[in-house]
Amino acid sequence: MVRPSRPDLEVVGVFNPGAIRYGKEIILLLRVAEAPVKRAENEVAAAVFDHSSGKLEIKRWSRDTPGIDVSDPRTIILDGRMWLTSISHFRLARSTDGIHFDVDATPAMQAATELEAFGVEDPRITLLDGTYWINYTAVSQHGIATGLASTRDFRTYQRHGIIFSPPNRDVTIFPDRIAGRYAALHRPMPEGLGEPAIWIAWSPDLFDWGHHLPVASARRNTWDDLKIGGGAVPFHVKAGSTDAWLAIYHGVTRTPLTYSLGALLLDGRDPSKVLGRSRDPILAPEAPYEREGFFAKVVFTCGAIPEGDLVRVYYGAADGVTAVADLSVSDILAGLE
Amino acid sequence: MVRPSRPDLEVVGVFNPGAIRYGKEIILLLRVAEAPVKRAENEVAAAVFDHSSGKLEIKRWSRDTPGIDVSDPRTIILDGRMWLTSISHFRLARSTDGIHFDVDATPAMQAATELEAFGVEDPRITLLDGTYWINYTAVSQHGIATGLASTRDFRTYQRHGIIFSPPNRDVTIFPDRIAGRYAALHRPMPEGLGEPAIWIAWSPDLFDWGHHLPVASARRNTWDDLKIGGGAVPFHVKAGSTDAWLAIYHGVTRTPLTYSLGALLLDGRDPSKVLGRSRDPILAPEAPYEREGFFAKVVFTCGAIPEGDLVRVYYGAADGVTAVADLSVSDILAGLE
Repeated sequence: MVRPSRPDLEVVGVFNPGAIRYGKEIILLLRVAEAPVKRAENEVAAAVFDHSSGKLEIKRWSRDTPGIDVSDPRTIILDGRMWLTSISHFRLARSTDGIHFDVDATPAMQAATELEAFGVEDPRITLLDGTYWINYTAVSQHGIATGLASTRDFRTYQRHGIIFSPPNRDVTIFPDRIAGRYAALHRPMPEGLGEPAIWIAWSPDLFDWGHHLPVASARRNTWDDLKIGGGAVPFHVKAGSTDAWLAIYHGVTRTPLTYSLGALLLDGRDPSKVLGRSRDPILAPEAPYEREGFFAKVVFTCGAIPEGDLVRVYYGAADGVTAVADLSVSDILAGLE
Repeated sequence: MVRPSRPDLEVVGVFNPGAIRYGKEIILLLRVAEAPVKRAENEVAAAVFDHSSGKLEIKRWSRDTPGIDVSDPRTIILDGRMWLTSISHFRLARSTDGIHFDVDATPAMQAATELEAFGVEDPRITLLDGTYWINYTAVSQHGIATGLASTRDFRTYQRHGIIFSPPNRDVTIFPDRIAGRYAALHRPMPEGLGEPAIWIAWSPDLFDWGHHLPVASARRNTWDDLKIGGGAVPFHVKAGSTDAWLAIYHGVTRTPLTYSLGALLLDGRDPSKVLGRSRDPILAPEAPYEREGFFAKVVFTCGAIPEGDLVRVYYGAADGVTAVADLSVSDILAGLE
C-alpha cells in the first residue's frame, strides 16, 4: 500500500505508527523503512542523509570488500563505522473508521539533519495546547537520540531539536500538564552498570527536560525480563475511584527473543509512582505476521486511541507491517498486579 | 591526609576534585573513595547506601560464593547484579595558596538517595548568580547519571535531582549565561551505534536541559582516539581578538590505556562550535604517581583555576591521589589545531 519515496528505494517495512484523533479522522504517522534497490547480487547498500549536501546519498559496497562486516542484515560495519541497510521516514495515513487508511504518496517527515542521517523512527504524537507534538527516534553515527517536532495541521512540521541525548528512545509525552509541568516517559540505555528501565522526566516547556527518575525496570523471569520501554502515549483511566494514567509499554524476553505489550498504571498526580503492572502480556506475537517477518516475534506500539472501555492499539508487527487490536481497558486493569 | 568517614571504612583514593575560588580561599571538593575494612582474607565487600533505611550498609561475601565474579577488582558481580568495591563521597579542602590544603574531617556531601546508592563522584563547581552549582556523577544500580546540587557557603548543600539520565557523566556547566541561556558540556555514552563524544545542552534554569548537539568526537590515531569527556569547567580566553571558551577535557587512548588532558577552544557566543583542539596532550601521565596506582596512567581533571596567562589544573592521578599543575594558556592556545 505504500509507494517508495524515490525510484531507487524500495519499501521494506511499514510499522510502529504514531496514532491520534485529528478532527473526524484517525491519523497514523507510519514509520516507512526503505532500502536501496539492488543493482548487483553481491552488493550491500545504505541510504544516508548527507548534511553537507542536504541530500539522501546511496552508498554501495561489494560484500567482498576487505574488512566489511555484513553478518547482521540490518547493519554494515566497515573501518570501525556502522551503516544501516534501511532508512526510515514518516508517512501520513488517514482514516474515518480507524481501520481503512489512505496513505499519502510522499513523506510527511524525513531525515533532514546530521542527527537524522540514518533516518527517523517510531513517532509518538501527543496533543497539548492545540499543537500536535511528535517525538521520534533520530538515528545517526552520533547514536540513537530522541527528537521533537510539532505540527498544527499535519501538513507542515517544525523541528525543535534533540530532547533526549543518546542512547535514549521510546519516549512518550503525557497529554496533560501535571502539577503545572509537562512529563514524559523515556528509556535511557545504560551499558555495564545500570538496568534497562523506563524513566520519567519533567519539563517547563517540552524542550528542556530534567528531574529524571526511574519508574519501572525489567522484571526477572517474566515476559519483560530483558528490557522494557515506553509504547503508546499514556491516557487517563479511572481505576476504581482513583484517577490514573494507563501506559501501554513493550517488554522483551529472550529464548526466543520476543517483544510483547503490557500496561503500567501510574498515579494520576505523580506518574513516577507505579500503581499496577501487567502480570501477563496484554498483546503477544501470535498471528503469522507477528511471529514471522523481518524481525520475528515482535509487537511494538507507538500509539493507541482510547474510547470508553476500549483502547484501539496500533502496532508494528515483526518490524514489517502495521496492525491493530482492540483491547478492553477493564480487562487490562483486571490483569494488573 | 584524609580520615575515613567511618571506622569500618578505609580511604583508598582521594582524587578528581572540583575546584573554585571562594573569597580568599581556593576550595577543592575532593572525591574520597572508601572501601570496607577487611574482616577476613577471603572476603569481598561493598558499601552501599540503602534508601529505605537511610543508612550506608556494608555487604560482605566470601570469594568462594557460587557464581560470584570478582575478576575486576572494582566490581562484584553476583546473580546478575553489580556492586562496587569502593564508594565515593565529597570532602572539602581549603587553601590560601592553592597548594597547601586543610581537609575537613567529615564529608561535605555523601550518598543520600536511591540514585546515589553506589556513591557520588567527580564533582564540578560552577559559580552562577552568587550560587555555587555542583554537578556530579550519581552512581547506582540504575546506572551512571549526573546530579545537580548547590551551595552558597560550602556548609549546606541542596540537591536538585538528576539533570542527565544514564549513561551520562563528565558534565561541565559554563560559568556564564550565553545568549540568555545556561549551557553545559556532557558526555552521553552510546553503545553499539554512536561514537564517544562531548555534547552540549542548553537550559533556561539549570534543572531542565535540551537542544542537545554533539560538539567533539574521539579522533582516530591520536591520544584521544578511544573516548573523550568534559574535564574542568570552561573559562573565558582571548584567542587573538576573539572571545572564546577554553575547555580542558580528557581523552583516552588504548595500548596501553592512557588518560591525558587536552583543550577545546569553543566559540564565545556559540560554544557548540569548535575553533581549535589540542594536537598533543597538554598534560599526560609522566610522574610515578600518575603512571602507577589504583588505575595506572590516568590524569583526570574536574577543576582548574585560571589567573592571567596561567591556569592551575587540579587533577586526579591514577585514581588515587590529587595533584596540581600550572599550565600556560598561551602555550595551550599555541598547541591547538
